[in-house]
Amino acid sequence: MGEIFETQEEVPEIKEKLHRVGITNLRTVAKINWKGKLYTFIPTFEITIDVPEEKKGIHMSRLVESITETMSEAVEEEVSRVHSSLEELELAIIKRLEKKHPHKRAEVWIKTHLIIGKETPASKKISLESYDVEVGVIKDETKGKLEKVLKVTVIGNTACPHAMANNQGKTHIQRAIATLEIQTDFDEEIALEDMVEVVESSFSSPTYTLLKTVDENAVVQKMYQNPKFVEDVAREIIFKAKQRFKGRIHVRVVSLESIHKHDVIAETWY
Amino acid sequence: MGEIFETQEEVPEIKEKLHRVGITNLRTVAKINWKGKLYTFIPTFEITIDVPEEKKGIHMSRLVESITETMSEAVEEEVSRVHSSLEELELAIIKRLEKKHPHKRAEVWIKTHLIIGKETPASKKISLESYDVEVGVIKDETKGKLEKVLKVTVIGNTACPHAMANNQGKTHIQRAIATLEIQTDFDEEIALEDMVEVVESSFSSPTYTLLKTVDENAVVQKMYQNPKFVEDVAREIIFKAKQRFKGRIHVRVVSLESIHKHDVIAETWY
Amino acid sequence: MGEIFETQEEVPEIKEKLHRVGITNLRTVAKINWKGKLYTFIPTFEITIDVPEEKKGIHMSRLVESITETMSEAVEEEVSRVHSSLEELELAIIKRLEKKHPHKRAEVWIKTHLIIGKETPASKKISLESYDVEVGVIKDETKGKLEKVLKVTVIGNTACPHAMANNQGKTHIQRAIATLEIQTDFDEEIALEDMVEVVESSFSSPTYTLLKTVDENAVVQKMYQNPKFVEDVAREIIFKAKQRFKGRIHVRVVSLESIHKHDVIAETWY
Amino acid sequence: MGEIFETQEEVPEIKEKLHRVGITNLRTVAKINWKGKLYTFIPTFEITIDVPEEKKGIHMSRLVESITETMSEAVEEEVSRVHSSLEELELAIIKRLEKKHPHKRAEVWIKTHLIIGKETPASKKISLESYDVEVGVIKDETKGKLEKVLKVTVIGNTACPHAMANNQGKTHIQRAIATLEIQTDFDEEIALEDMVEVVESSFSSPTYTLLKTVDENAVVQKMYQNPKFVEDVAREIIFKAKQRFKGRIHVRVVSLESIHKHDVIAETWY
Repeated sequence: MGEIFETQEEVPEIKEKLHRVGITNLRTVAKINWKGKLYTFIPTFEITIDVPEEKKGIHMSRLVESITETMSEAVEEEVSRVHSSLEELELAIIKRLEKKHPHKRAEVWIKTHLIIGKETPASKKISLESYDVEVGVIKDETKGKLEKVLKVTVIGNTACPHAMANNQGKTHIQRAIATLEIQTDFDEEIALEDMVEVVESSFSSPTYTLLKTVDENAVVQKMYQNPKFVEDVAREIIFKAKQRFKGRIHVRVVSLESIHKHDVIAETWY
Repeated sequence: MGEIFETQEEVPEIKEKLHRVGITNLRTVAKINWKGKLYTFIPTFEITIDVPEEKKGIHMSRLVESITETMSEAVEEEVSRVHSSLEELELAIIKRLEKKHPHKRAEVWIKTHLIIGKETPASKKISLESYDVEVGVIKDETKGKLEKVLKVTVIGNTACPHAMANNQGKTHIQRAIATLEIQTDFDEEIALEDMVEVVESSFSSPTYTLLKTVDENAVVQKMYQNPKFVEDVAREIIFKAKQRFKGRIHVRVVSLESIHKHDVIAETWY
Repeated sequence: MGEIFETQEEVPEIKEKLHRVGITNLRTVAKINWKGKLYTFIPTFEITIDVPEEKKGIHMSRLVESITETMSEAVEEEVSRVHSSLEELELAIIKRLEKKHPHKRAEVWIKTHLIIGKETPASKKISLESYDVEVGVIKDETKGKLEKVLKVTVIGNTACPHAMANNQGKTHIQRAIATLEIQTDFDEEIALEDMVEVVESSFSSPTYTLLKTVDENAVVQKMYQNPKFVEDVAREIIFKAKQRFKGRIHVRVVSLESIHKHDVIAETWY
Repeated sequence: MGEIFETQEEVPEIKEKLHRVGITNLRTVAKINWKGKLYTFIPTFEITIDVPEEKKGIHMSRLVESITETMSEAVEEEVSRVHSSLEELELAIIKRLEKKHPHKRAEVWIKTHLIIGKETPASKKISLESYDVEVGVIKDETKGKLEKVLKVTVIGNTACPHAMANNQGKTHIQRAIATLEIQTDFDEEIALEDMVEVVESSFSSPTYTLLKTVDENAVVQKMYQNPKFVEDVAREIIFKAKQRFKGRIHVRVVSLESIHKHDVIAETWY
């Protein structure tokens, strides 16, 4: 095999639909006015559209250059304006693409960090906490659907119930990382902050950047009163998320075991 | 919200099925005797089984400890033996799990590196090339299926046809990275080497660790005779893969553009 | 060996000075009013002080808890205020540490992203470009010095002069990544933007997020007129940097070769 | 500034010595016969030599192509043979470089994984543990020196003594990662295994891939009997390393705090 593919002239023979063509890992700055307050993000973008089977080969290929040029231009023009949410910014980018490159499916994805002030458990100080978030808007004209995907990644901890039962209350404790992802209608109102709250309240204890000694003691006590496997954390997150949010839900929890060099994982979806 | 989930005693109320419970990022050493030759790998493992809804809370939770213990034991015992392929090693691990932890679904995933000797284009020397590979075995008793997933990641390059047409044969060239993934029956015979060949022959040119000046010239000439967008690379890979391999195919190509700070992407599946 | 170190009681025997004790990977938000314009950053902090040899063991150890608590508190209080530069923010954090934890050496490091608008070469549009930057302030009382370290990482490209000479003007081109680091007096005025300019102008061509076809052609033409090895890029950066900036200079350039799977590197310092 | 550097013809004006020119991130396979037993590694190489100030510009630049070609050839030829240690393999590569490219300084660096069987604390089973290691050989003719750098990274844990004192024996525990680096004469005999032992015995407890319930209990008990800050771990490692190994020693310990989202760090050197 191989020879017949070696020159560009023969490429037109290849008729394959591409589901996702575009740009990725584009980092820039964006301003979101959310509920009357202005937030600055340093997001990383991925933007794709589908491209049908080639009919005339090289001619269609040229289109790609134009697609990716239009995409980077759409990002730069839209991030110079203020939008009301990350998904509204993404939809505005899709609207621009529609004019120049007709397509059946378009996706815009943003990865960024969310900083939220949380009250510490004992001293009641405000501690700034950081969360990785990802927001995608998916337009699928075949299904007549405009959907969004919201994803938060939260750092917490687990205290092992099995070791605790076997060691008179002593146990191994570790940092754990949980991700909650919801795919739902674009118009469904779900705040990333609420998703963070669901995940953060499902660990043995939440974690904090700023802890006075009284707070540290409160966190330690809470972890021992609340021993959990990663699977308990995963179950609690999906249980709460189903009650609170409408859509398809995916949960993944990884525990950086303190007694092993490897990690433990629990994953489920609905 | 929140209070009702705060203590372990209330957890039994949460009845949620978990699709994937196990261990991840476990690195070890494995020996594979493939077609009569012994290869050593330093793989990273992920192993999961499904766990049904809890019936009695804490009792079922204890199971997790036993599951993850059984998994790490199964890995260590099986990697001390020589298997005939990565997927045979994975199936042997699943067989061990079946005895201790009945389940409907089990997955074993290995990520590792494959080193293959390739002939350079002009000097005909052998150059050792490195590829990231991933192999998974998925047993799903509900569907009565034993499947495997084979994935190779190959580094090549793209020379832009659009810039070439606009600049009297001059163009921008860059490193590109393509992934080919096939999900198929466990018994389907597909060599990772053949998958690598399909991907590597679809770039503007393959790349080599060792290039004498005559080889470098041959690679440069080939790139200019063979300009391709990432979308052309993606189309060629899926076209060839469909002819050669049986199963569900996923292709993803990312080009580290030399004229941008961001990347260009093309993705498709069948 | 080993037994004598196994219990906490024996630890006081260990008298070792620690050069750097503190916190790392703390991500938060910061506002900098630089030359009258407000910028928002999502920085990651590392903060350390030195700790002398233990005299009374466990008693001294307790200090660590207090040190790290003071550090996170200092970060959170200072990032709630607006500073005139990243290094002024860092110095303010050191000033807070001085009051609670006397030390001879203190360091505060920030890693973040800088977004700068650049004019494209032909269409003269403004393209938002992203750069990784790192700024550190080092206070060393032993030497009576207050210094800072400024570091920028810039993405550009290289077009190989050797292949060009051997292939009638055809050559291999690739993305390259260069880092310029300057260690200098705290009071030395050096703008990160100027460091970026020195690096970005030393590649075969700068890269842009937004390129119209006329710009793309200009970039392609420039790369062919300006072939460079990574070592040429490294030499040009250090040559310009020595003329323009006062301090110890370190340059590192890595080229993601399009004809190899590995990278090429050139590094020098002064 | 800027214009005078824009064309290749002007580059010869730049006379700057380069301390490190070569290749990096080259992954291949290597076999080491260490004390009579054959080990397979999948190492990543970095190889550099110094290049003096250019005298004739473009002519000297061409040398780079030859340098990097010689380097990749030297790696491929040497890894096809069996050496007695990673540093002997590196020295063999330097010997090849000497013949073709006279230089004052040469460095060869290898990053790879070491798998060591360790006995678990209670069941006395053998558990395969994985460690990141790095070995470099530095030849400096100016100083008339042939040195090597040995580095091991080990995963363990810390149990906080401060929280333990404040919470009736309860405390927070977490995974911690420590690096020990030694720069010494090439002929100094230091086994990576011994370095791993020094680091691994300095945590609150070592960690294991394979733990039966009795082992897990032993690890949990040991952590509580042995509470340590990262600074205690750092002090213990450097104290032991100074007694056992000859050379310049660098220690870095990072604790993935279970009560914070950020990490705690202790670093020292001698």
